[in-house]
Amino acid sequence: MAEGPKIAVLGASGFAGALAARLLHRHPWFRLGAITARAEAGMALRELYPHHRVDATMVEPDLDAIAAEHDAAIVGYPHGASSEAVAALHERGLLVLDLSADFRLRDPATYRHWYGDVHVAPDLFGTAVYGLPEVHRDALRGVAEDGRLVAGPGCFPTAAILTVAPLARAGLVGDVVIDAKTGVSGAGRKLQRSTHYVDVSENAHAYGVAGHRHQPEIRQELAGQGMDAAVQPVFVPHLVPVDQGELVSCYVRPPREVSADEVADLFREAYGEEPFVELTAAEPGMRDVQGTNVARIRTHVDPLSGRILAFGAIDNLWKGTSSQAIQSLNLAYGRPETEGLDG
Amino acid sequence: MAEGPKIAVLGASGFAGALAARLLHRHPWFRLGAITARAEAGMALRELYPHHRVDATMVEPDLDAIAAEHDAAIVGYPHGASSEAVAALHERGLLVLDLSADFRLRDPATYRHWYGDVHVAPDLFGTAVYGLPEVHRDALRGVAEDGRLVAGPGCFPTAAILTVAPLARAGLVGDVVIDAKTGVSGAGRKLQRSTHYVDVSENAHAYGVAGHRHQPEIRQELAGQGMDAAVQPVFVPHLVPVDQGELVSCYVRPPREVSADEVADLFREAYGEEPFVELTAAEPGMRDVQGTNVARIRTHVDPLSGRILAFGAIDNLWKGTSSQAIQSLNLAYGRPETEGLDG
Amino acid sequence: MAEGPKIAVLGASGFAGALAARLLHRHPWFRLGAITARAEAGMALRELYPHHRVDATMVEPDLDAIAAEHDAAIVGYPHGASSEAVAALHERGLLVLDLSADFRLRDPATYRHWYGDVHVAPDLFGTAVYGLPEVHRDALRGVAEDGRLVAGPGCFPTAAILTVAPLARAGLVGDVVIDAKTGVSGAGRKLQRSTHYVDVSENAHAYGVAGHRHQPEIRQELAGQGMDAAVQPVFVPHLVPVDQGELVSCYVRPPREVSADEVADLFREAYGEEPFVELTAAEPGMRDVQGTNVARIRTHVDPLSGRILAFGAIDNLWKGTSSQAIQSLNLAYGRPETEGLDG
Amino acid sequence: MAEGPKIAVLGASGFAGALAARLLHRHPWFRLGAITARAEAGMALRELYPHHRVDATMVEPDLDAIAAEHDAAIVGYPHGASSEAVAALHERGLLVLDLSADFRLRDPATYRHWYGDVHVAPDLFGTAVYGLPEVHRDALRGVAEDGRLVAGPGCFPTAAILTVAPLARAGLVGDVVIDAKTGVSGAGRKLQRSTHYVDVSENAHAYGVAGHRHQPEIRQELAGQGMDAAVQPVFVPHLVPVDQGELVSCYVRPPREVSADEVADLFREAYGEEPFVELTAAEPGMRDVQGTNVARIRTHVDPLSGRILAFGAIDNLWKGTSSQAIQSLNLAYGRPETEGLDG
Repeated sequence: MAEGPKIAVLGASGFAGALAARLLHRHPWFRLGAITARAEAGMALRELYPHHRVDATMVEPDLDAIAAEHDAAIVGYPHGASSEAVAALHERGLLVLDLSADFRLRDPATYRHWYGDVHVAPDLFGTAVYGLPEVHRDALRGVAEDGRLVAGPGCFPTAAILTVAPLARAGLVGDVVIDAKTGVSGAGRKLQRSTHYVDVSENAHAYGVAGHRHQPEIRQELAGQGMDAAVQPVFVPHLVPVDQGELVSCYVRPPREVSADEVADLFREAYGEEPFVELTAAEPGMRDVQGTNVARIRTHVDPLSGRILAFGAIDNLWKGTSSQAIQSLNLAYGRPETEGLDG
Repeated sequence: MAEGPKIAVLGASGFAGALAARLLHRHPWFRLGAITARAEAGMALRELYPHHRVDATMVEPDLDAIAAEHDAAIVGYPHGASSEAVAALHERGLLVLDLSADFRLRDPATYRHWYGDVHVAPDLFGTAVYGLPEVHRDALRGVAEDGRLVAGPGCFPTAAILTVAPLARAGLVGDVVIDAKTGVSGAGRKLQRSTHYVDVSENAHAYGVAGHRHQPEIRQELAGQGMDAAVQPVFVPHLVPVDQGELVSCYVRPPREVSADEVADLFREAYGEEPFVELTAAEPGMRDVQGTNVARIRTHVDPLSGRILAFGAIDNLWKGTSSQAIQSLNLAYGRPETEGLDG
Repeated sequence: MAEGPKIAVLGASGFAGALAARLLHRHPWFRLGAITARAEAGMALRELYPHHRVDATMVEPDLDAIAAEHDAAIVGYPHGASSEAVAALHERGLLVLDLSADFRLRDPATYRHWYGDVHVAPDLFGTAVYGLPEVHRDALRGVAEDGRLVAGPGCFPTAAILTVAPLARAGLVGDVVIDAKTGVSGAGRKLQRSTHYVDVSENAHAYGVAGHRHQPEIRQELAGQGMDAAVQPVFVPHLVPVDQGELVSCYVRPPREVSADEVADLFREAYGEEPFVELTAAEPGMRDVQGTNVARIRTHVDPLSGRILAFGAIDNLWKGTSSQAIQSLNLAYGRPETEGLDG
Repeated sequence: MAEGPKIAVLGASGFAGALAARLLHRHPWFRLGAITARAEAGMALRELYPHHRVDATMVEPDLDAIAAEHDAAIVGYPHGASSEAVAALHERGLLVLDLSADFRLRDPATYRHWYGDVHVAPDLFGTAVYGLPEVHRDALRGVAEDGRLVAGPGCFPTAAILTVAPLARAGLVGDVVIDAKTGVSGAGRKLQRSTHYVDVSENAHAYGVAGHRHQPEIRQELAGQGMDAAVQPVFVPHLVPVDQGELVSCYVRPPREVSADEVADLFREAYGEEPFVELTAAEPGMRDVQGTNVARIRTHVDPLSGRILAFGAIDNLWKGTSSQAIQSLNLAYGRPETEGLDG
């Protein structure tokens, strides 16, 4: 039986929260504690998501009770709605992993520019560890002792950063166009015109063009890996008729000529030992990683234009959100990084 | 009753040929003549494509008989297999519209490089009118008198050229990344692993990376519109779980700063009067144009990077192939350009 | 130019109303008049449904203005909301074709039982011609002179009645199980959990089990064709991941032994001359009829159980609703039955 | 580390074999041994099925080597091709679980009638335990000692038998119509017209009407549960645009009047303690059970016709094939029945 820390999931009726609950429920060491929801309080999670097979009932979120009975919490609230609960639980000493965007950015001016508002928890803002294990593994390992919270990366930034970071570190990102394709689950459970089946099927279109909030997140992290801070990645997401899956196609102009071998070597160095990154001989597809914590990446150098082409596929709900959160918690608690994630 | 020229369709069992047959069958002026197929000779087209509702039976292709009884022919053969029939029918005086890539390029060296072979009809190679009405309308109008054949554009080039040409003409294409998404019908009826339902659903991946044959076609035509011939467009197609539809996302680096208004004006000038190009206020989607001869386009200027972002959607089988062929034939025969295409 | 009667479409923002507007817009004789919507008044129909290519703007429904300027109206309101407008326009002398269920039934007690309410227009209730041309052609031809309104059949009843009627007429329906599968557009444009893409994809389930309102409609019409009124058809619809399409699988227990040939003969007699019913040699599929006014039907006699198996496919929005309405109007106005429906 | 019996998977390149390999690879006690394939020998399973994350390479099937090094084998060959290998491995003392239909029937005449041929292994024919744990649990528990092989049920029979058996036992199956809907993976990996994406999407149709080989299998097992052997179930499968999933809609005419409560009680008695059968309050959907070993069932009594309506959903590759095989092996080896199946 599991005997590790007891972890609550706030916002368990959403796609991401529900999957986090499932992964904790199956985890050999962590214990799933309370799962909360507002509108669906009193409902069994199994009723909403039968295939997750989690025997637990959602309850109203009571932060005091949660703080009293749990060691950690995953917060699956929408952007803006998250910071208050995160701050409250963090203050009460829980290790908090926030799935929202509220604590991902570190520059207050950038936050204000993109989110149009003052932050609810200004003292905590900018202090979180960015929960991308392949990039911030050491910080994640120390997060429990440091008393820091973890900001789970956005799904697009997860894919984009993993796919471009080795080039950023090598000083090869002269500029970059990131054309992303995502499945519909990325838009959440909320009913809206754009997720009606009839609107999605036989369709594909861009959205959030020239202004998607994941752009500054991608830029912050790639700059942190050595990309010239003046480079403004072009980031455009597209919706395709898929439930779970995400693909980023990254077109990088290197400041000097590079060979395909040189690029391939960079990625092998970066990811050769990574348990959840696979370098592939075929173009990575969404289907290859569905239901896994894996990112699959392939690179090319286009002989005509000299550009580096790098493709990265993840499952937006798994590696892009919830299973990556478990990977971060594994690190935070000193467990094997793959524990509970190889099912 | 229709009383115009009688037009044969060779290769009518394929997606493109069958749709061409349907459009001719419904056309108020053209008459649908013989429809041919090899493996399916003797079979009613309705058996293969009931929803097209064409009462005609496919016959073995007999070029002499076709030449004797028809005024024109649409040839829907695969690349490489087309030139021989095209040349034979052209020599016998028919107006030929070839849907394959065999006569699209004009530079023999480029052809050899990308298709790896000497051309079967070297005298005819390079003489065809490129059948993109919005770009070559005058040449298409004169094609019957000139005795030239028409090379129907590829589906990706159709979308890409329409979406980028106004920028090329204005000298604004410093470089360009074209990330294309296509439905499965673009791969044809042939059985292959990549079109098995299980491989396509819940999937999306790039293919033909750094070497798709539509690249030189796009480059030739954009250079013809004023793009610096040294620019090598980056072109990467992706397969998405859609039957019919195509979307190109074009990321253009202009050599100087431009405003969104300036770009919008260019497109209004270029397409304001076009019956089959729509400039949209929302991102164009595949679904918006399915079963139509329409291209929908939207442009942006990304304030962060200064890049021009241009999105274009077509139906790969309609505007990308078969209905565009009818549009070209309408022009070639001096008919109203929209005849038979507004259904 | 079209010069026939001017026809308004009320409720043009819904799937069915919008398609009716498109078909009238393209019709060679009818003239499309006002198209109405409440929430979307002032919006171009093209904005909601670009692929329909209808240049018209939706207006608030003003029944007096509509009555003054139109000869006929198609009403695409939800069940219950329709009867008031239908009665008002009918009273003002328009030929009204109602797409809702409000006037389909003829027995007031049955209506009350299934719709749980008194009818808003009791005088008109029970007087409409049931707009299934293959069954009520003569009544539809006389409807303009008779001053009757037309009740457009439900999509499931359309498919079920066409597929079972020849057996009912021959006294062969001892009992019948109708297992129906439908695409999502049948549920309309309204946002609801069951039409969210994530809920529909990779899914199929029954709904409205043992109580779907189409059951009494099917029973009424099959009884009208000779089925013993004591037979209660079992009718269960299922939702499948399809946009447009409907398939009914009908399992009929005949009161005596029948041969496959005898059954096939019945259907040939019934439908041999019908322009929109096709008897097929392969199992009919939704895709075969998509975007057409066609019903495709195939029958078998199961040698093991002796049951008659009859399968019928239609497009729920076309033959199941809007194109069938045009077919009925063609009859009502003495036009060729296929006019405007062979595109 | 796993330390239980070593189990080979023959035919691991197919959907069912590959999933069996994955489940054994992840199983806490069984050890995955050799995985075999012919055309794909030498290829890593991960290349074909990346999301299964199994690090093993397929080898040519060498029955002697397999017999020497393994305790058991799962055989995932097509029907007809299986019996020879099954007989050979069984003779050499392995516990064999056959996923094909070769050993499911027990009556030689029925086999000849439906499979049109003499059986390759007549001595073994009719001796297998039918591997449906909820029905044959005791026999499966003893199978290792008895020296019998296990015939894994077909996917449709699994769903149909589970959904109807409680009624058969209670003598309530006067007759039964089973309308089944299946995802495409049930048709296997072979390339064929009917699994081309374009043929499947926006489509649904019956197939194998009045002659599907799962009918005698369903009849044999329901008769074994008490259904009158004279009853010939009507069984018609339909293909819907889904990858993995299966739904059976069963329309049962009881020989006497029954109440919904009486039926519900029967199912609660039958399945109340079953770990992998869930009785639901909503209509079961394919999506609810995808990627699980669960069957979800709901029953109704139609007040109009008096028929019992029973709906059952499974994942055709999991409970319908491969995970059910693991469940049977758990029983055969005296392990907890759910071991390795709750991921």
